[in-house]
Amino acid sequence: MDHVEPQHRIEILCIGDELLDGRTADRNAFWFGQRLTRTGLRLARATVVHDDPASILDALNEAAGRASFVLVSGGLGPTEDDRTRDVAARWAGTELVEVPEVLVNLEKRYLERGMAFPQTNRRQAMLPRGAEILPNEVGTAPGFRMVTPAVTLAFVPGVPAEFRWFVETHVLGALSSGEGGFCERSWGFFGITESQLAAAVESLQTPELSFHYIPRFPEVKLFVRGQGDPAEAALDRLAGEIMARVGSYLVTEGEESLVERLGRRLVERSWTLATAESCTGGMLGQMITSVSGSSAYYQEGFITYSNRAKMGRLGVPGELLDRCGAVSAEVAAAMAAGARERAAVEVALSVTGIAGPQGGRPDKPVGTVFVGMATPADLYVRELKLYRWDRNQIRTLSAWSALSGLLWSLENRLPEHLMRRV
Amino acid sequence: MDHVEPQHRIEILCIGDELLDGRTADRNAFWFGQRLTRTGLRLARATVVHDDPASILDALNEAAGRASFVLVSGGLGPTEDDRTRDVAARWAGTELVEVPEVLVNLEKRYLERGMAFPQTNRRQAMLPRGAEILPNEVGTAPGFRMVTPAVTLAFVPGVPAEFRWFVETHVLGALSSGEGGFCERSWGFFGITESQLAAAVESLQTPELSFHYIPRFPEVKLFVRGQGDPAEAALDRLAGEIMARVGSYLVTEGEESLVERLGRRLVERSWTLATAESCTGGMLGQMITSVSGSSAYYQEGFITYSNRAKMGRLGVPGELLDRCGAVSAEVAAAMAAGARERAAVEVALSVTGIAGPQGGRPDKPVGTVFVGMATPADLYVRELKLYRWDRNQIRTLSAWSALSGLLWSLENRLPEHLMRRV
Repeated sequence: MDHVEPQHRIEILCIGDELLDGRTADRNAFWFGQRLTRTGLRLARATVVHDDPASILDALNEAAGRASFVLVSGGLGPTEDDRTRDVAARWAGTELVEVPEVLVNLEKRYLERGMAFPQTNRRQAMLPRGAEILPNEVGTAPGFRMVTPAVTLAFVPGVPAEFRWFVETHVLGALSSGEGGFCERSWGFFGITESQLAAAVESLQTPELSFHYIPRFPEVKLFVRGQGDPAEAALDRLAGEIMARVGSYLVTEGEESLVERLGRRLVERSWTLATAESCTGGMLGQMITSVSGSSAYYQEGFITYSNRAKMGRLGVPGELLDRCGAVSAEVAAAMAAGARERAAVEVALSVTGIAGPQGGRPDKPVGTVFVGMATPADLYVRELKLYRWDRNQIRTLSAWSALSGLLWSLENRLPEHLMRRV
Repeated sequence: MDHVEPQHRIEILCIGDELLDGRTADRNAFWFGQRLTRTGLRLARATVVHDDPASILDALNEAAGRASFVLVSGGLGPTEDDRTRDVAARWAGTELVEVPEVLVNLEKRYLERGMAFPQTNRRQAMLPRGAEILPNEVGTAPGFRMVTPAVTLAFVPGVPAEFRWFVETHVLGALSSGEGGFCERSWGFFGITESQLAAAVESLQTPELSFHYIPRFPEVKLFVRGQGDPAEAALDRLAGEIMARVGSYLVTEGEESLVERLGRRLVERSWTLATAESCTGGMLGQMITSVSGSSAYYQEGFITYSNRAKMGRLGVPGELLDRCGAVSAEVAAAMAAGARERAAVEVALSVTGIAGPQGGRPDKPVGTVFVGMATPADLYVRELKLYRWDRNQIRTLSAWSALSGLLWSLENRLPEHLMRRV
C-alpha cells in the first residue's frame, strides 16, 4: 500500500490483559484497518498492551510521538482494571473529573434496561478534564477525544459492537482522506494454491495496480488495488484477463460470498435445492441458509449421520452400504439422487466421508470424502483426498467442494476432471 | 496478571500489510499469548506493522530495546513483499547469504508435492549471516534465530499452521518459565450478562486469585487464575461456591465445549439424539457433529426449511401450520415430537423462528424463535425474543438455547422458568 500517501499517520492502541493472555482475540484493529482502507486511508500500526498503567502510558507516549491520530480501544469499562481514563488524564497532565451529563445518561441507560445503576460504575462518568465527550448511544461507557497540536487521541470502548459504532460515528468522519479515488477489486478462488494463483496472474501487474494474494481458508483471495482514474481503467481491463487465466477456480467476486452467489444463480434458474449430509453434519445446510432469503430455493436438508437414516430418509439400499461402505462414490451418488427425488427439487448435493480423527482405515484413510450432485440431467460424484487436514478443515473443504461444484455447473463451467458423471 | 513475574520480557511482532489493511485478521499474537499463559509466561506486547523495510526496522529496534525475547512472524514467503529476511540482516549489521542445506530442503519439499521448484523462491534459502536455522517440517520457508547478549529474536512464518508448529517446536522450549505453579480454572455461562455474573461472584475474590470476566458470544467466560499452591487450594474451595451462586447458567468448564459436554452426558445415559431445524438451517447438527465420536449418539437431523418438509418429514399437521404459523410454540413442539418419533431416538431438539432481516411481522418480529425438546418423559417449548440481534446472532443464540436446555435437563438442573412443559 506504499502508493497511498494519506494526510494522517494513524495508529490503533488496544488495551487489555485479555487480548494478550489468550482469553480474547482482538478483532478491533483488523476491522479498523479494513474501514480505513475502504476510506482510502491507511492504518500504520496496531499495538496491543496490558492494562497496567505503566504499559498503557508507555504505549500512549510512543504512539503519540509517531502518529497524527491514535485510536485507543478498551479499558473504559466499570471494573477497577479499566484504567485507561486515569492514564489518559496523566498523559495530558490533568486529572479526572466527574461529568454530570455523563452520569445522568449512564443512570438513564441502566433504567431503560430495568437495572439499578451500580455505584461502582460511577467511575465511567469520570473523564480527563478538558476532554471532548464522545457520547455512547449503543452502550454505557462514553468515549472521549483529546487534541494537541501534534496529535489527536480518541478513546473508545473495546466491546466490538460499541467500538465499531464509535469508529463509524465519531472517528471516520474526522479522518476524511483528501485522497479519494481508491479502487479495489477482489476475487476468491477455490482449488488452487496461493503460489499457483500468483504464477498464473502476476505477469498482469501494471505500475498503477498492486496485487495481493491472501489465503483465507479454504479460499485464496486476490485483491487488486490502485488510486485514481488510470487505476480504475486498468482494473476494468484486468478483470477479463484474470477470468481467462484462472476463471475456472473462481468462486467469489468482491464482497459476495460463495453461498450468496450460488443462491443468486439458483434464483435465476428458479431451481430449488436440497442437501444430504453425513460427515459435514449440517454444515452445508447451515452455510446455504446463512443467506437471508435462502428459503426461496433451499427446500430441506437430510443430516443422515447413521446408516439407518441413509436408508430410511434417502432410500440408500442397505445392500449398497454393505458392499461399498457408507463412505463410497456409490453411496454419495445414491444420497444425492435420493435427496433430489424425495425433496422433489431440481438439484441435490450430498457429502459422505471420514472427518476423523477416528474412523480411518488403510483403504479409506481419514480425509476420504465423496461429494455427490444430482441435477435434472446428470448425476455427478467427486472423490476428495483430504489426508493432510484436521476434522474441521476436512468438513469445511468438503462443504466448499460441494457448493463450488454446484456453482460451476450452474455457470456452465464445471471442469470435467472434477466431477465424474455416474 | 501482575502477579506473574516471568524471567523474560516477551513481545511478538507481526509483519504484513494484509494484517493492517483489512485483508487478514491476525490470530498468531492471540494464540502465542495463550500458549505463553498456559506455560506460566506472559506476553508483554503485540505489535503489527506493514512489510515496508522502514516500518519493520523501526519496530524491530523498539521491541529489541524493550524485550528479552522477540518473536517475529511473517514476511518470510517467496514473494518480493516478503522483506523480513533483508531487514533482519540489516538489524544485525550483516548481509544475506544463501544456505545450501536450506535450498536443498526447499527443492525436496516441492518435489514431494510433485511441483517444480520456482527459482523465484530461491530467496527463501537466503538467511542473515550467522543466524541459526530453524528447520521447517510443515512448510517451505525456514525460520531463523538471532541472539545478542540483550535479546533473542526468532523469525518464523506467519501462516498460522506453520507459525504454531514453530512456536511449539522451536520457541516454547527455549522460554521455560522457571516459575511454574500457574493454575487456572474457567467456566462458561449462558443466559447471564457479564455484569450480572460479576455481581454474583466478585465477592469470592481472594488475594491469591485473579478473576477475569470475558464475554465470548454467546457465552460469558469466567477465568480465575493464581500462582503456586495456596492459589491451587483456594481454587478448589472456590469452585463449589461459584456453582452454588451461578451454577444454573453453567454450560462449560475448562477447555470442554458445550457440545462436548452434551455428548458426554448423552453417552453416560446411552441416549440417542436427533434434531429438527428451520431457521438454524443445520447449525444445530453442525455444532453437534463438530465433536469427534458424535456418531455414537447423534442419529440424524431434519433441516425442514419449507412447510412441506415440516409436514412430510416430521408429520407437522398442515392445519397446525395454517392456524399457528410455522413460527409458533405449537409447531416447535410438533417438530420435536415428530423428530423424536421418526428418528426413533430418546431425545430430539427443534428450532423454528424468524432470523431476519426479512420476514418479521408486528405480532412476530424478527428474533421471534421457539425451541422445542422432546424427551422420553416430556415435551418442552421455550420462546426466545431475540429482537436486538442480527441474523447470525439469532441463529447462534437459538442453537445455544436448544443445546443448553438439553444439557441442563440431562444434568437435572433445567430451570422451570426456561422451558414450558406442553
